[in-house]
Amino acid sequence: MKIGIIGIGLIGGSFALALRRGRALGDARLIGIDRDVGALDAAQALGVIDECASFAAVSTCDALMIAVPVRQIPAVLAEILPHLRSETVVTDAGSTKQDVIVAARLAFGGRIAQFVPGHPIAGRERAGVAAADAGLFDGKHVVLTPIPENTAQSVERVRSLWQGCGARVVEMLAETHDAVFAAVSHLPHLLAFALVDELASRPNAKTLFSFAASGFRDFTRIAGSSPEMWRDITLNNRDALLRELDTYEAQLSKLKRALLARDGDALEKLMARARHARDQWMAGELDGFPDEAT
Amino acid sequence: MKIGIIGIGLIGGSFALALRRGRALGDARLIGIDRDVGALDAAQALGVIDECASFAAVSTCDALMIAVPVRQIPAVLAEILPHLRSETVVTDAGSTKQDVIVAARLAFGGRIAQFVPGHPIAGRERAGVAAADAGLFDGKHVVLTPIPENTAQSVERVRSLWQGCGARVVEMLAETHDAVFAAVSHLPHLLAFALVDELASRPNAKTLFSFAASGFRDFTRIAGSSPEMWRDITLNNRDALLRELDTYEAQLSKLKRALLARDGDALEKLMARARHARDQWMAGELDGFPDEAT
Repeated sequence: MKIGIIGIGLIGGSFALALRRGRALGDARLIGIDRDVGALDAAQALGVIDECASFAAVSTCDALMIAVPVRQIPAVLAEILPHLRSETVVTDAGSTKQDVIVAARLAFGGRIAQFVPGHPIAGRERAGVAAADAGLFDGKHVVLTPIPENTAQSVERVRSLWQGCGARVVEMLAETHDAVFAAVSHLPHLLAFALVDELASRPNAKTLFSFAASGFRDFTRIAGSSPEMWRDITLNNRDALLRELDTYEAQLSKLKRALLARDGDALEKLMARARHARDQWMAGELDGFPDEAT
Repeated sequence: MKIGIIGIGLIGGSFALALRRGRALGDARLIGIDRDVGALDAAQALGVIDECASFAAVSTCDALMIAVPVRQIPAVLAEILPHLRSETVVTDAGSTKQDVIVAARLAFGGRIAQFVPGHPIAGRERAGVAAADAGLFDGKHVVLTPIPENTAQSVERVRSLWQGCGARVVEMLAETHDAVFAAVSHLPHLLAFALVDELASRPNAKTLFSFAASGFRDFTRIAGSSPEMWRDITLNNRDALLRELDTYEAQLSKLKRALLARDGDALEKLMARARHARDQWMAGELDGFPDEAT
């Protein structure tokens, strides 16, 4: 068995290391494909992949993981198609799903059934294969958003790859996926980037930052993420993210009204609800949360 | 020498432990005063204070630290005044300063010179004397916001107490203090509380929180803070905080316009500026930041 990994960065590299650690695939060979020759060399030097190859090697692979930045996925899909055997299953690790599916339909046409979209909910601030970690996916969610054309068998193959990496695989609609991650990931990233940029551009920024403390450090940790990656995620999930921004602005307006009215009760209740919800979540106790279908 | 500490919680208890550790005061006695008898008993059992006392003991103290929630400071000031010797210096640890100074002027009247306002920039999520830590202030800023009536000697005494705790003492105008902390602390807290509350109240909250990951965890850590304390801080620094909210909303509108226009360049530039600023700050390199007087 041969598994091709296109894009040997943090995610592709960790996928390779986790697969090998899990040994779910016996003596499967891991083929690295990357436009960045330096990354391939590093990956081979680190023992992350067995061999590096060009896109032509796609024809020898039984499964393909596309772990490139979301914006590059359409080009990669077009590039692999001429080499793709009909029994090879292709999956991806993109942070947004509806746009990737649109791109895959365009690129693959009648062969779209071979593409099973996925998204591992794991990451690091540091990028690149040097940061790859066999345990990156342990106990973490991987969301698959199968399309109607996928066979149960294809979905199962992708699922078992991720389970071999130690991940917990769940399935949902691509639209649900994008809405959920707009709320719990993309919006917070945008809010953190927005705050740091706004404060850093003020005439007294030096004073402000010299008094910023640990609360600010943690609140803004995600503003240390890759601008290229997050530009793409925010553009690719634009509509869901704009809805989230609207909702959040309405919530801020509510808070402003409470402040203007000096309504300590409303402020304290909101804060107490937030703290309680976060405490429950941190304790892994989600039973008290509203649970209507998304 | 006797030092009275009114309010033996995390801050008051840590102040006592740090003073004793520092031994800057030789054999000074630390007197705990707290309406909560349980807290006093715990503080004595933990060896945090030498003795506990009622407000009448204020007359025996050379210095007083008021480390109660900001909202309780006016009542404490009124309660200590009848027992206060004219040579005793009084300071506080409140997170907002202009409002505390107004309250102190009201309570102390002609004796206002004895009150030197202060704010240690240190904290924990856990409250109470059991969480007190002799190292809580090590290398942390303590901001003093002296008023015109304070003598240089009074300010120096408060400064040396905090330096004895391992803190770095700086002075600024109360107005500057409140503006700075509205931006780098109070606004982020409000933003985090707002996000968690909003998401937790949705019909699909259970799904949302089950996919929230480490970025969300860190972004919202400060939403685990005390609702009572943050209700008071946000109310007491209301005007500065409302200005910060307006500025932040304008920044979000800018981001929304960039998203609507699919302006990837503008998004990436903003994110890159934010990441760069945060990297510089984390590295302790503030020389590149704008530095106009606040």
